[in-house]
Amino acid sequence: MIELGSNRYGKSGIRLVKVQRNASTHTVRDLTVAVALEGDFRAAHVEGDNANVIATDTMKNTVHAFAREHLTGSIERFGQVLARHFVAFEQVDRATVSLDEHRWVRIPTADGPAPDAFLRSGDFTRTAVVASTAAGEALEAGIRDLVVMKTGRSAFEGFPRDAYTTLPEAGDRIMATRLTASWAYGGAADLDHDASFDAIGATLLDVFAEHDSRSVQASAWIVGRAILERHPEVQRIHLVLPNLHHWLVDLSPYGQQNRNEIFTATAEPYGLIEATVRRGS
Amino acid sequence: MIELGSNRYGKSGIRLVKVQRNASTHTVRDLTVAVALEGDFRAAHVEGDNANVIATDTMKNTVHAFAREHLTGSIERFGQVLARHFVAFEQVDRATVSLDEHRWVRIPTADGPAPDAFLRSGDFTRTAVVASTAAGEALEAGIRDLVVMKTGRSAFEGFPRDAYTTLPEAGDRIMATRLTASWAYGGAADLDHDASFDAIGATLLDVFAEHDSRSVQASAWIVGRAILERHPEVQRIHLVLPNLHHWLVDLSPYGQQNRNEIFTATAEPYGLIEATVRRGS
Amino acid sequence: MIELGSNRYGKSGIRLVKVQRNASTHTVRDLTVAVALEGDFRAAHVEGDNANVIATDTMKNTVHAFAREHLTGSIERFGQVLARHFVAFEQVDRATVSLDEHRWVRIPTADGPAPDAFLRSGDFTRTAVVASTAAGEALEAGIRDLVVMKTGRSAFEGFPRDAYTTLPEAGDRIMATRLTASWAYGGAADLDHDASFDAIGATLLDVFAEHDSRSVQASAWIVGRAILERHPEVQRIHLVLPNLHHWLVDLSPYGQQNRNEIFTATAEPYGLIEATVRRGS
Amino acid sequence: MIELGSNRYGKSGIRLVKVQRNASTHTVRDLTVAVALEGDFRAAHVEGDNANVIATDTMKNTVHAFAREHLTGSIERFGQVLARHFVAFEQVDRATVSLDEHRWVRIPTADGPAPDAFLRSGDFTRTAVVASTAAGEALEAGIRDLVVMKTGRSAFEGFPRDAYTTLPEAGDRIMATRLTASWAYGGAADLDHDASFDAIGATLLDVFAEHDSRSVQASAWIVGRAILERHPEVQRIHLVLPNLHHWLVDLSPYGQQNRNEIFTATAEPYGLIEATVRRGS
Repeated sequence: MIELGSNRYGKSGIRLVKVQRNASTHTVRDLTVAVALEGDFRAAHVEGDNANVIATDTMKNTVHAFAREHLTGSIERFGQVLARHFVAFEQVDRATVSLDEHRWVRIPTADGPAPDAFLRSGDFTRTAVVASTAAGEALEAGIRDLVVMKTGRSAFEGFPRDAYTTLPEAGDRIMATRLTASWAYGGAADLDHDASFDAIGATLLDVFAEHDSRSVQASAWIVGRAILERHPEVQRIHLVLPNLHHWLVDLSPYGQQNRNEIFTATAEPYGLIEATVRRGS
Repeated sequence: MIELGSNRYGKSGIRLVKVQRNASTHTVRDLTVAVALEGDFRAAHVEGDNANVIATDTMKNTVHAFAREHLTGSIERFGQVLARHFVAFEQVDRATVSLDEHRWVRIPTADGPAPDAFLRSGDFTRTAVVASTAAGEALEAGIRDLVVMKTGRSAFEGFPRDAYTTLPEAGDRIMATRLTASWAYGGAADLDHDASFDAIGATLLDVFAEHDSRSVQASAWIVGRAILERHPEVQRIHLVLPNLHHWLVDLSPYGQQNRNEIFTATAEPYGLIEATVRRGS
Repeated sequence: MIELGSNRYGKSGIRLVKVQRNASTHTVRDLTVAVALEGDFRAAHVEGDNANVIATDTMKNTVHAFAREHLTGSIERFGQVLARHFVAFEQVDRATVSLDEHRWVRIPTADGPAPDAFLRSGDFTRTAVVASTAAGEALEAGIRDLVVMKTGRSAFEGFPRDAYTTLPEAGDRIMATRLTASWAYGGAADLDHDASFDAIGATLLDVFAEHDSRSVQASAWIVGRAILERHPEVQRIHLVLPNLHHWLVDLSPYGQQNRNEIFTATAEPYGLIEATVRRGS
Repeated sequence: MIELGSNRYGKSGIRLVKVQRNASTHTVRDLTVAVALEGDFRAAHVEGDNANVIATDTMKNTVHAFAREHLTGSIERFGQVLARHFVAFEQVDRATVSLDEHRWVRIPTADGPAPDAFLRSGDFTRTAVVASTAAGEALEAGIRDLVVMKTGRSAFEGFPRDAYTTLPEAGDRIMATRLTASWAYGGAADLDHDASFDAIGATLLDVFAEHDSRSVQASAWIVGRAILERHPEVQRIHLVLPNLHHWLVDLSPYGQQNRNEIFTATAEPYGLIEATVRRGS
């Protein structure tokens, strides 16, 4: 017997820019939103009956229509409103709303920060995922594409050597990564997600800069543990750390010594390290 | 207490091109390989002890070193050899090897297909994932980025309408997708993976072309079911179908009727439909 | 004195898909079009007076509106109609229309080629640029992103060696490129652009496959010269040939000889070779 | 007669990261460099004689080898050293060196800016192009991918309307662009390129924020003119301004008024405006 297994559908890449026009200054919010639904969609697949299929175009419209009234605080709050709207449909068991927030900062001018002109900051993207079911709600906050580099206090030594190992021990190497992290909050329903995000981001950068790295794995642990230690609202954090290799260039053919000074960066292949740090029982 | 949760690491984006030089003709194999390991890596994270950390550079070297002898058949077989090599390390519980095969076809010339000149075919990428543990091996074959379009026999009607629904019923619409699929084989260890891939791909295209689509969901089911029906070696297939929207252009401002003739394609937002079809009990 | 220099403006990325519905089968045309205008736009810049500024949105609408009646033959013909439309505006001195054609081929089924289902072929993009002025019209046809590889009959030897040269002589190397070419037609106004494109493409592939390459430069000349020799309608061809390096992997650390068999492909850095071949006087 | 026309070749995508290790702090320079040569390369094309062909691999090596000693100031100075090195080869008539500088800023920590840890700033890329010939040197400085937005003081009105015009007049619209600019310096050989870049960038942002825009064309002129007025070392500036459209969402189907508040951003199609502003005679 052939049967339908797990399935879901939705709309991705919904672009939403909101300009709040206050007395003297504007504020810009710039999001990319995705909605995905799971539930009673068997008839749509097996019988071609669309009676339960909320159109993905309707999902997009709903995101736009809700923005005016409900996008007034954190992306987490906006995601909750959207996820609860969709899970309220009878045929929906789980509604997952993913939100990326793109940062715009006021342009600095001779007269101070511009009231109505902005510069897109490409340093990172803030993320949130809200999943609503009848049983409750799961929320993940996160950050994506934060590119950071340590030029000191980074090593990789003592790894095993087999017939295929040619990598030399490195007591002093560049470590660079395009960091993605997501974390789950426990506890209080009235958490200030914006304040937590800012504080966690500051810890992340601070610890990345200050720690001694013996490997990307060790860095993942040290950064993750510090975030849990300093931010009791965080229950669990997942880190994804591609190793953006910077290789020492061999300058000896040109009669030069390379005292950890000249590197070339490569895009492929790349190391990929993933780890979860969590509160144990 | 703060503890390490699930973790894994490896090397991604390992590029490998093999030229087999036979008597009169060459053959090209072009792969991108990724290796990921799970196992006893707690000390690497928590203590900064790299004694168990097979360097990701060593993984890359191993892929290159194994290619001469072991990349002689399907990517599934090559993946198995690599995964078994890595899972044999004492500290490794699971070794996952992912392989993408990029297609090169012989250049047609006035004298027939060229023996040593090739054209990269961008129609799709063949994929395989092999995961080895002490308990056994899981294998997923697949296809990625196969872009297909139906200009007839595609509709989307009868969906529910709420306050946010503006999409009109469409009895005759374009349906286009960038299809990704992966499937699990059951049974015989000596399966001819190349023959199965070709046959499954032919079914997929045939059924996509021939069926009447009442929604992308219905298409996913029809295509998936046909593959299971016609290919008893397939146990389960997962389909990911972004809906590459082609919108009818309103030509009425220019005094023209648009009889399903002129469309514009948009990249964002896009529908995203995922479904698994499997053999039930 | 500060003054306005050369300037132009237009709309890029105009997506257009046309489905021609004949008795029994459909035909798909899939274009990306760009329009750029030069002319009397000084007031728009210097005085903020938009009276001469045809809106770029209007350009997009025009492309869509003209498609039904005028996209019936080659992209060159459609480009001519569009360019002539825009250059007819009094304020326009030069209208340049660039067209990319994306290829869809009929899906092969058990019953033959599908009448209404298509597979996007990623092998290359066909291009055309038409520039119209009061004085006349210039037309460039071309091809983009044709990825080809020679595994034999390719060398690079005899190059000069200075203090910074480490590259070994290579009597037998892989040569791969992502070829872009554009060419100008002379003569007859009634040229069959589709037939010429197909014939030139066939020559390009045939000569690429058959020739002995002593460098990418030599290949550019040989391919370009052959196209001019065999296709009298071509006056000049410009070739852009990034050298997609495939480097021989050093397998000696693993006790293996690499007899030109195992390569790794790199994306950066890459060689970049450009040459024009033309009819002289 | 068929002959070789203009031609050039070189190496692109040369990645170079330099870490300067001072007493207490590190400094990071991160460049992507391209080298292109024109000159006496006819024999390489027509006769397959590589005696004059400086290998592109040698170009890459030269960039790396020169970095230790010569990358100590602006990218313009480093580009000059490289271009002069290559144009000194007898067969080279023109050597063009293009440099992109990627910005890394010190990570802010609780103890102040980190001495050896950096955050990649994605706000823009600084660029320079140096072209050396026997007759002299041309230098272009620039900036790329600076994404900026005006939510106020931007309009587009008074444009002509024809049969294909549907765009409404907009007295208050969002204007956003991914700005690329390049400019030529006149005069003094001892110009401080870093100081000029910073000052020009500040003017660019200041004027973009402060001016009233009646079109993207008018903005290009106003920004360009201000740069020439305030920076006498700039002889000419070329601006490339894609119009990143933000369209007002029609909320009326949901019973809402959209008072310039809710927008959707689209990637395609996009307006593209280019203009040069220069000192006249």
